[in-house]
Amino acid sequence: MSSQAPIGVFDSGIGGITVVKELISRLPNEKIIYYGDTARVPYGNKSANTIVTYSRQIAHFLIDQGVKAIVIACNTASAIALEVLRRELPVPVIGVVVPGARAAAQASKNKKIGVIATRATINSCIYEAYLQKTNPDTEVYKQACPLFVPLVEEGWIHDDITKQIIHRYIDGLLAKGIDSLVLGCTHYPLLAETIAEVVGKGITLVNPAYECAKDFKLVLEENELLNDVSSQPVHEFFVSDGPVPFAKFANSILGEGTILPENVLIKCFE
Amino acid sequence: MSSQAPIGVFDSGIGGITVVKELISRLPNEKIIYYGDTARVPYGNKSANTIVTYSRQIAHFLIDQGVKAIVIACNTASAIALEVLRRELPVPVIGVVVPGARAAAQASKNKKIGVIATRATINSCIYEAYLQKTNPDTEVYKQACPLFVPLVEEGWIHDDITKQIIHRYIDGLLAKGIDSLVLGCTHYPLLAETIAEVVGKGITLVNPAYECAKDFKLVLEENELLNDVSSQPVHEFFVSDGPVPFAKFANSILGEGTILPENVLIKCFE
Repeated sequence: MSSQAPIGVFDSGIGGITVVKELISRLPNEKIIYYGDTARVPYGNKSANTIVTYSRQIAHFLIDQGVKAIVIACNTASAIALEVLRRELPVPVIGVVVPGARAAAQASKNKKIGVIATRATINSCIYEAYLQKTNPDTEVYKQACPLFVPLVEEGWIHDDITKQIIHRYIDGLLAKGIDSLVLGCTHYPLLAETIAEVVGKGITLVNPAYECAKDFKLVLEENELLNDVSSQPVHEFFVSDGPVPFAKFANSILGEGTILPENVLIKCFE
Repeated sequence: MSSQAPIGVFDSGIGGITVVKELISRLPNEKIIYYGDTARVPYGNKSANTIVTYSRQIAHFLIDQGVKAIVIACNTASAIALEVLRRELPVPVIGVVVPGARAAAQASKNKKIGVIATRATINSCIYEAYLQKTNPDTEVYKQACPLFVPLVEEGWIHDDITKQIIHRYIDGLLAKGIDSLVLGCTHYPLLAETIAEVVGKGITLVNPAYECAKDFKLVLEENELLNDVSSQPVHEFFVSDGPVPFAKFANSILGEGTILPENVLIKCFE
């Protein structure tokens, strides 16, 4: 495998663009091939079997595009499908969960960590499994927040209703005395400012997308896959539905004009 | 086609069970084969192409099960795929949109009608197209309400936050002076009591599921397909994911013990 090959990134939909932003910033020479499963989004309420099936289809598609390594930008797919894909695929695979969990453990002084995520990620118990293996004295408190994704998609970011919903979901975690909080779904960092306002200054918010991009650079270096040839890569974007709203959202994160809707290709699996 | 054959009902997920409830009540001799596309729910944010593709897959599956007629219980699929399926299928097909629109026109005295639905249904303009064709002096005011489905799924039915969100979405319609309001998504009737509290007594809430079941009986009669042999049909339920949560929700609507999770079969299209 050549270090000039592209890297593959996939997500259940549009949220993984927050991971792409961090990857572009840390790994400017790497060409990215992104797949967003916008027809079948969200993954957060689906069964583990279905999440593995969908993740496997996408990963094999990315392998067919010649990628040298894969980033699972979706917390739910990272929680459920990472180990299967690692066993089955011929390239390194990294998810967002382990980097996020590790950063939370480093940030926490009192070893009380909160995790908010989709229902599937919460039910997978992946964050506490990793944290309690690596930091046995850690206490993990968690909460599924199914309304956060539609609130972000409505654009109700700095909104009194959103603040009330944040309180509803997070007050129970605050009562446990957590001092760090993992934003365990790619959409949640888009609510970070409002969440910070609600939880106050004493609590560190951890963005797994940011941590994942840091770790991924190390993975590429360890596998001698880092592209150190200066380049201006033209990234490629695939979705299973709705190229126009995808491009609109992506440009709001990556900068206006970064992606032209006509360059976003549709790839479905049925 | 025999009048003893079953009827097919499909929805993007679990919400169509509210239509099943009305069908059981009005057509007690009819055996129902239900398909809920729980792996790919929701349809409301998907493109028209994808909604047609999914609806076609499901309809052909129901035809293969020997159904004599099909009810599209999903407003979004009714709005987008009804005409295509009518052209392509060898059996009568009915959706929830036309019965809902007709009932709203009948209920309205001032001819100002509100429609709330998913984004795909709203963007399809299907309600105003039908209403303005059949009642040219009607004014239609509409609003997509993407937070209603997750609010219902959270169980936040009688909740102050939900009331505020209803206000946010519906106050603009009230300001237009509507006197009837179509609950244009299968989940919305589950919020009907709370919506009624917010909009007050002067406004008639129209439940397309209820109207659809009435119309469907006429369709069966016209096609000499009504099963008038007294029977105790055993309905069949198929989903693309998550039989256990499906059965739990269905029983909350149809009565505890109506459906055993082990009798809900999984059928996927990939």
